[in-house]
Amino acid sequence: MSTINVAILGFGTVGEGVYRILNEKKRAIKERTGYDIQVVSILVRDLSKTRIPTPGVEITDNLQALFEQSKIDVVFEAIVGETPTFTYLTEAINKGCHVITANKAMFAKHGPELLKQAIEKGVQVGYEATTAGGIPIIRTIQNLLASDRIYRIQGVLNGTSNFILTKMRQDAAPFKAALHQAQELGYAEADPTDDISGMDAFRKLMILSQLAFGKQPKWATVKMDGIDKVIAEDVLSAGRKDLRFRHIAEISWDESGEIFGCVGPVLIGADHPLYGVDGVDNAVIVETEYLGALTLIGPGAGMYPTGSAMISDLLQILATRNRELVTS
Amino acid sequence: MSTINVAILGFGTVGEGVYRILNEKKRAIKERTGYDIQVVSILVRDLSKTRIPTPGVEITDNLQALFEQSKIDVVFEAIVGETPTFTYLTEAINKGCHVITANKAMFAKHGPELLKQAIEKGVQVGYEATTAGGIPIIRTIQNLLASDRIYRIQGVLNGTSNFILTKMRQDAAPFKAALHQAQELGYAEADPTDDISGMDAFRKLMILSQLAFGKQPKWATVKMDGIDKVIAEDVLSAGRKDLRFRHIAEISWDESGEIFGCVGPVLIGADHPLYGVDGVDNAVIVETEYLGALTLIGPGAGMYPTGSAMISDLLQILATRNRELVTS
Repeated sequence: MSTINVAILGFGTVGEGVYRILNEKKRAIKERTGYDIQVVSILVRDLSKTRIPTPGVEITDNLQALFEQSKIDVVFEAIVGETPTFTYLTEAINKGCHVITANKAMFAKHGPELLKQAIEKGVQVGYEATTAGGIPIIRTIQNLLASDRIYRIQGVLNGTSNFILTKMRQDAAPFKAALHQAQELGYAEADPTDDISGMDAFRKLMILSQLAFGKQPKWATVKMDGIDKVIAEDVLSAGRKDLRFRHIAEISWDESGEIFGCVGPVLIGADHPLYGVDGVDNAVIVETEYLGALTLIGPGAGMYPTGSAMISDLLQILATRNRELVTS
Repeated sequence: MSTINVAILGFGTVGEGVYRILNEKKRAIKERTGYDIQVVSILVRDLSKTRIPTPGVEITDNLQALFEQSKIDVVFEAIVGETPTFTYLTEAINKGCHVITANKAMFAKHGPELLKQAIEKGVQVGYEATTAGGIPIIRTIQNLLASDRIYRIQGVLNGTSNFILTKMRQDAAPFKAALHQAQELGYAEADPTDDISGMDAFRKLMILSQLAFGKQPKWATVKMDGIDKVIAEDVLSAGRKDLRFRHIAEISWDESGEIFGCVGPVLIGADHPLYGVDGVDNAVIVETEYLGALTLIGPGAGMYPTGSAMISDLLQILATRNRELVTS
């Protein structure tokens, strides 16, 4: 029997989701792939914190100890923030591990470098969970690219912003009250800057640009606005005209090879495919040469949608991985 | 250099689309896969008909001659109707060909049998183009199934019906006038029965049921209504309440393992994800255990969207095919 040894870096919402799904679907994954998935270690920052029971799993706050303890085949990374994640994943790749990340801040900036390292080491990088939560947009674009050409991608890529705009419309709430509600429900961080400034959507857009066009525009050339300047009065007056504000990130490509990006609130009508995308949902519209426009709408975040996206990366890796990495 | 010999059965809109894309993307496919795709023969019903030029390709009206002339690796099937397509594809599979079909009437009924034959012969069956046109719903569900469980699928699966309902609303047109317009634009056949009776949507629903749940409900248990009983007055009175008619096909699964299907016109409001799906577009909502709801919207038909779906099947087959089938 072939066993795949897994380490999870970070055990917040996403890391716990990965652990739960791997346990719940252990038998199904084995039946489907022939592999027995074994979570052998979890890296945490604070060893004293109370967590769900994880019998038989080594909990450590030391990355070196984690790699020395067992041979790891696949590393799931669910840490927030750009550093030190990039160095952690570089180290994992150097040790011959496949890596699967949900870290958009890190991947928007260091993704190209990680992918290059992975090719050199003959391992794979899964990043479905970095962008648009549970929507399988990375896989879908990878498949489209095989036989088509992408011209433009538009998306509602930040669930927090979309939730706040939805609340402002539905409850006639001012921005601050809607933000406060998002924080109470756990949809926004105590420091919501990345979400409401447009930075989070921008990063996901850069990841999509890299995938669809093979490069990113110079970051400074992308006009970026957040939802923090949208006022309740504008939302309500738009509503009376059957228009809705959506925070939309867009990237497009022209025949000369130039790439243009912009991120900001846009007013759209009832016939726009993003009109009905309310609450914390995300959505992406991909425009291609042959297909025309393809729209995907789904959950933008959450323990299970994000965890599920990372597990689908694992299954993709198992389907194509090198035989010699099987540990037993 | 490895060459893949391709035959196309049927050279109407879809068959021609496949031929065009294979030619336009010949170099890109070779760069990506290493394979040189060669269309060697095309099966037509009427040899005397005028067609686009296809230099170097044998045009025949005889299936046996087609198989005897050259070794065929992959058969693209773009014939309308259930028979004789099933026997053609059975023959192709028996000769060791991978088959890629756009034929929903045939596949809804004989799909399970074809898939069984293909497993026995070690070849693959691609059927992305049978359902929801250019929307990659088959691939998406296959990927979801790997790590998730599907509970319900809802969709606008017939572009003709959706176009007619859209016209009835937008132009305050009676059913017959809207149907006539669909026929003039080439969106509806001279005999539109399959589309407007709900039969076409029903067949696609059965294909989705087979894929998502591993079986189909007994066909007679599925309540099926078409759009032919929707009257202009109802559409307009719904419109005044901001409601829209959509022709929706739905299949769901309960804990006892029972499957329930229904097909018919439904009134939906502005917050329903299918509200904005107008014209000949198709849409599918997949509800799963982990992901929640995922919605895909895209073109329901057309030479390039359908052809492109079939080419993506080819690329999938090339990525996983047996080496020994390479002809040179």
